[in-house]
Amino acid sequence: MSRFLSPEALRCAPYTPGEQPRDQRYIKLNTNESPFPPSPRVLEALSRAEAEKLYLYSDPTCAALNEAVARRYGLGPENVISGNGSDEILAFAFRAFCGEGKGAAFADITYGFYEAQAALFGLEAKRVPLREDFSLNVEDYLDFPGTVVIANPNAPTGMTVSVSGIRRLLERDPERVVIVDEAYVDFGAESCVPLVREYENLLVTQTMSKSRSLAGGRIGFALGSRELIADLNRVKYSFNPYSVNRLSLLAGAAAMEDGEYFRSCCDAVQKTRAWTVKALEERGFAVLPSSANFVFAKSDRLPGGELYRKLKENGILVRWFDKDRIRDFVRITIGSREQMEALAEEIDRLLSVL
Amino acid sequence: MSRFLSPEALRCAPYTPGEQPRDQRYIKLNTNESPFPPSPRVLEALSRAEAEKLYLYSDPTCAALNEAVARRYGLGPENVISGNGSDEILAFAFRAFCGEGKGAAFADITYGFYEAQAALFGLEAKRVPLREDFSLNVEDYLDFPGTVVIANPNAPTGMTVSVSGIRRLLERDPERVVIVDEAYVDFGAESCVPLVREYENLLVTQTMSKSRSLAGGRIGFALGSRELIADLNRVKYSFNPYSVNRLSLLAGAAAMEDGEYFRSCCDAVQKTRAWTVKALEERGFAVLPSSANFVFAKSDRLPGGELYRKLKENGILVRWFDKDRIRDFVRITIGSREQMEALAEEIDRLLSVL
Repeated sequence: MSRFLSPEALRCAPYTPGEQPRDQRYIKLNTNESPFPPSPRVLEALSRAEAEKLYLYSDPTCAALNEAVARRYGLGPENVISGNGSDEILAFAFRAFCGEGKGAAFADITYGFYEAQAALFGLEAKRVPLREDFSLNVEDYLDFPGTVVIANPNAPTGMTVSVSGIRRLLERDPERVVIVDEAYVDFGAESCVPLVREYENLLVTQTMSKSRSLAGGRIGFALGSRELIADLNRVKYSFNPYSVNRLSLLAGAAAMEDGEYFRSCCDAVQKTRAWTVKALEERGFAVLPSSANFVFAKSDRLPGGELYRKLKENGILVRWFDKDRIRDFVRITIGSREQMEALAEEIDRLLSVL
Repeated sequence: MSRFLSPEALRCAPYTPGEQPRDQRYIKLNTNESPFPPSPRVLEALSRAEAEKLYLYSDPTCAALNEAVARRYGLGPENVISGNGSDEILAFAFRAFCGEGKGAAFADITYGFYEAQAALFGLEAKRVPLREDFSLNVEDYLDFPGTVVIANPNAPTGMTVSVSGIRRLLERDPERVVIVDEAYVDFGAESCVPLVREYENLLVTQTMSKSRSLAGGRIGFALGSRELIADLNRVKYSFNPYSVNRLSLLAGAAAMEDGEYFRSCCDAVQKTRAWTVKALEERGFAVLPSSANFVFAKSDRLPGGELYRKLKENGILVRWFDKDRIRDFVRITIGSREQMEALAEEIDRLLSVL
């Protein structure tokens, strides 16, 4: 860093994203991408005629995309904000709803970005330990006076909180915002989106990076009361009004409209997840109950760091977090059946030479 | 706004972007877009094969794009950061280099986003009045102890500051960052990019939204010393690491590599600008000397607000700022020759019925 860095920026805690190798020689099971290409409707929407219009700005209100999202969830466009990935929307939410004396609470083991964004805005962050079995106890958050952020399903565990638990948090203190990050909800968890009409203090964020096969398009959105969405727009227009580009607006709307393709992809991931859990358990792994497009697993014979390194040496990328409580685990994205079979074979080989 | 809004977010001063009508019935001369489509190389780069890869994340380091930018300017990739438009990079810079007791200074009449971003981070902003003729006096900034932000050419005036003036600012206080926003530099102003090697405290931002015909792709970049760029990355990885999407990474690199097309577009805009200035002056307008792809002009017969409204009623969008000192002016983007001829005709008609 330079001598010009402000003390505020010095306090930042930058997030380390999973490796994104520039070549494609790895089986990539480390950043929870979909193994499927985008919907054919997305490919159709990205026409040459649209590319020729890139000299014009995108619609800063993201109206057509917000309308497609709203239709899908039976809400109004005033209940939707779209952004450059859900990471951006989460950052807007941290700025909009937190500040001095009004921090954020989240789990000790959860998406690392909450920590980074709290630090970016100089917020007090309360890290609430998950139970020994990595489940989240909503009781721990009941009386927290700031914003509560819950990833549901959680990452990297894949485990869920019940909607009734979220409801308790929302009702306990109607003056407090509860953010439910549903990046992985489409792979088998129960969504809180139906609660948006009921609770003014609920914000649900989702992403098109996982279940909609658009990680490279950078499209996320949030659903909430008209007032919460207006607050987020206030921050967005102070930061970067044109945050979603023209082609991503089109891709996102097309993906949202192709419900059939979406369901077939999610079904396939859930089937392959069941196969993968069984395969790992048969090989001596403990696997946390996952409702996401990844599993969090530990081997009874290979420590997490070693497993990560050996798999990488042999062409398979998984994610390992060198962090207390989870150092023994690796997070494995559910890829295609073929990719998971290759993983199982490689694990067999690694275990056989121990 | 909701009762949940933090006092920090309440202090935000959201930017109002120019109108982006969803239909295309207007001659759009209000947001300084290029009148030309992107380079044919860009269209080629956005292939179906690449669209099919949108299920994979983009490269968060933007390596290929940064390399293309670095090659173009004879710098190293460590001297470049790319972002989701130069607005995003400017926000990163405000966070990286400013903070409590270290504010930002910029002109009273300049790009409205500096104000918005300073408010977003709760910074003290010093608004330094331009001279009566709208020229910027570097003397006014010599002893400012925080970060100096200068749009060169300035918006909405189109007027420039000399590189020797910027040099004086850089040398006067080597502990202070000077940000030169060169969004419009390619239309005839002198760039400070060659100074990047000389001054550790210089950051130059540019955008592909204007001279590279990619407003809808949302691609901006900054050039600076390795240390300044590392600071900006620290903020980027605390906010949204994957901020440039896959297709924009490709489009940006392709646009940067097509120097010939770029020069032909910039030349055409400059020729049309000369024609437009003459046409406006012949119609009684005072036009500020512009080195940008727009002109800032006031009629001797039609106040700015009225001109804006009447042009809009008749299908031509220009930008009007309802703000002290510049209320009499309108900012007119240089479009195609045909569009500017249509503008001149419409002005003739409006003046004839006064």
